[in-house]
Amino acid sequence: MSEAGPYIAVVGAGHVSGELYEQAREVGRLVAERGGVVVCGGLGGVMEAAARGATEANGVAIGILPDEDRRRANKYLTYSIATGVGHARNLAVVCSADAVIAVGGEYGTLSEIGLAKKVGRPVVSLGSWELGEHVDVVAAPKEAVETAFGACGV
Amino acid sequence: MSEAGPYIAVVGAGHVSGELYEQAREVGRLVAERGGVVVCGGLGGVMEAAARGATEANGVAIGILPDEDRRRANKYLTYSIATGVGHARNLAVVCSADAVIAVGGEYGTLSEIGLAKKVGRPVVSLGSWELGEHVDVVAAPKEAVETAFGACGV
Amino acid sequence: MSEAGPYIAVVGAGHVSGELYEQAREVGRLVAERGGVVVCGGLGGVMEAAARGATEANGVAIGILPDEDRRRANKYLTYSIATGVGHARNLAVVCSADAVIAVGGEYGTLSEIGLAKKVGRPVVSLGSWELGEHVDVVAAPKEAVETAFGACGV
Amino acid sequence: MSEAGPYIAVVGAGHVSGELYEQAREVGRLVAERGGVVVCGGLGGVMEAAARGATEANGVAIGILPDEDRRRANKYLTYSIATGVGHARNLAVVCSADAVIAVGGEYGTLSEIGLAKKVGRPVVSLGSWELGEHVDVVAAPKEAVETAFGACGV
Repeated sequence: MSEAGPYIAVVGAGHVSGELYEQAREVGRLVAERGGVVVCGGLGGVMEAAARGATEANGVAIGILPDEDRRRANKYLTYSIATGVGHARNLAVVCSADAVIAVGGEYGTLSEIGLAKKVGRPVVSLGSWELGEHVDVVAAPKEAVETAFGACGV
Repeated sequence: MSEAGPYIAVVGAGHVSGELYEQAREVGRLVAERGGVVVCGGLGGVMEAAARGATEANGVAIGILPDEDRRRANKYLTYSIATGVGHARNLAVVCSADAVIAVGGEYGTLSEIGLAKKVGRPVVSLGSWELGEHVDVVAAPKEAVETAFGACGV
Repeated sequence: MSEAGPYIAVVGAGHVSGELYEQAREVGRLVAERGGVVVCGGLGGVMEAAARGATEANGVAIGILPDEDRRRANKYLTYSIATGVGHARNLAVVCSADAVIAVGGEYGTLSEIGLAKKVGRPVVSLGSWELGEHVDVVAAPKEAVETAFGACGV
Repeated sequence: MSEAGPYIAVVGAGHVSGELYEQAREVGRLVAERGGVVVCGGLGGVMEAAARGATEANGVAIGILPDEDRRRANKYLTYSIATGVGHARNLAVVCSADAVIAVGGEYGTLSEIGLAKKVGRPVVSLGSWELGEHVDVVAAPKEAVETAFGACGV
C-alpha cells in the first residue's frame, strides 16, 4: 500500500531569487518524475518552488511546518503537517527524508544540513553551504536529483 | 492542487484489543469515505487500524512517527513522517488535524487530548478518557466521524 | 557537585486566581525547604507562584520556556531555559522532574499529566484534573509535597 | 533574584581528544570566573569538559539533555534538564544562550551553529567549523570567552 518512492527533502531559504526558485522548482519536478516524494518545510521560497515543481509534474509534495496550524502552508503542497515545534521541525524534515538536497540556503538550511548528517542522511548541495567532503556539491538540478537518488540507494 | 479534505487525527494506544482495533479501523474507513485525510502517530494498535481503514477505503493515511526514521511505520500508511522528537510528535499529530478522534487510549492519548484542546482542536471521545464537557463523547465510529466532521465545520 | 535534591515539577495555568496562586507558592516553598528543585514552565500564574515560593525560601526554581528566548520568563526563576519548541516544552518540564504536582490547571496541564504518566513520572493533583487512580489527589500544599517526595523515593 | 550573568552555550562533540577537552574545560572555567552560566548538551566530551571547568571554578553549568530522563547527564552539571525531544534539544541549548562557543565539533555542532544563527545568537568558533564571516573564529579559550561576552553585550 505504502509504495511511495524515496522521500527527498528539498531545503533552502524562505525568500529566494528567481534563479534559485527555478532551480528548486526543477529539482522538485525531477524528483517527482523519478517517483520520489518531495518533503520540505512547507513555507515559501525554495520550499514552495520544490513543492510546485513536484505537483506540476503530478507528484507529491509534503510540507512540514513549524507552526501550530497550516495557515502559512504554500499552495503547492499535496499534504501539510503542522508540527508546532518551531525550528525543531527542521529535524522532522530531514528525518523524514532518505536524502536531502540543499538549494542555496541560509542559517536554517545550515542547521538542516547538520541535523541530516547527524542522523545519517546524505546531503547534496546545489549552490548551498561549502562544507568540504561532508556534502556532495553539484552544479545543476539534474545532477542534484541523480546524486540524491543514488545516495539513497535507489 | 492541495484540495485534500479535512485532516482527522485518530489517536489511541499502540496495543489494543480486537474490538478497539475494529472500531479504529471503521473510523479510518469512514473518514476516508467522506474525503478526509487520516493523521495518526504511525505505529501499531489504533494508529495502524485507522490507517488500515482509511487506505482500505482508498483514502490517505499519514503517520507522524516519534522516531528518527520510518522503520517502525505501520504498513498501512500512505505517507510517513519521522519527526525525531519522541513524544513531542503528539503535538504534531494534533496540530496537523482539524479535529481529533480518540479511540480508547492510555497516557499518550491523554496528552494528545490535552494538547489538542490547548491548540483549539475539537476532540471526540470513543471509549476514551472521561473529561466532562471538554470532549464530545460518542458511542460508535459513525457518530465519531460525523461529530468530528461537524466540529471542524465541514 | 551536582548534589541537587529531587526535581519537582509544579504545573498549572498561566493565569490563576489568588487562591491557586497562594497554593502554588506554598508548594514551591515547601519543595525548597525539603531541598528539592522546582521545575516549571517559566511563565505566569502557577509557574510564577511556584518559582516565587521556592526562591523566597532560598531554593532553586528552573523555568523551561516555550519561546526562543527568555524574555517572558517570570522574575522569580533562578535559571531559565528557552526551548523554542512551543508546547512541546511541556515534555521537557515533566521529563526533567522526578515527580509532578499539578495545581489547578487547564488543557496544558492536562497534557503535562498525560506526558508525565507516559514517561513514568508520578503525578499529584491539587485541585487539578480528576483522573481516577492515575493521579494522587491531595487537598493541601503540604500533603502535595509530602506525596510527591514520597513518590519519587526520597 | 534571578541575577545570573549571561548564559554561554558551549557546544561540541560528545567524544573528544584530550586537547579539545582541556580547551573546553578552560572555556567553562573562564565563563564561570566572569559570572556567566554555562549551558551545554549535558553529555560527555566538550559538554562534560565545559561543565567541569565551570563547576571547578564554583560556577554553574546547566545541561540540556536529549533524553527522557537525566541518567546520561555528566557528573559535573549543577542542574540538568531532560527534554525528551532528541536532537531537537540542540535548539533549546542555543535558544537558552546569549552567545554560543563551539569547541571543535561534528555534525551536531554544525546544526547548533545553524540554529544559533537562525535565532540570532552570536557564535564563536574555537577549532570548529569554518563558515566564513558567519562565526567569530578565535584561537584560544581566553579569546573565545572574551569574544562571546563582548558579543552578548556584557
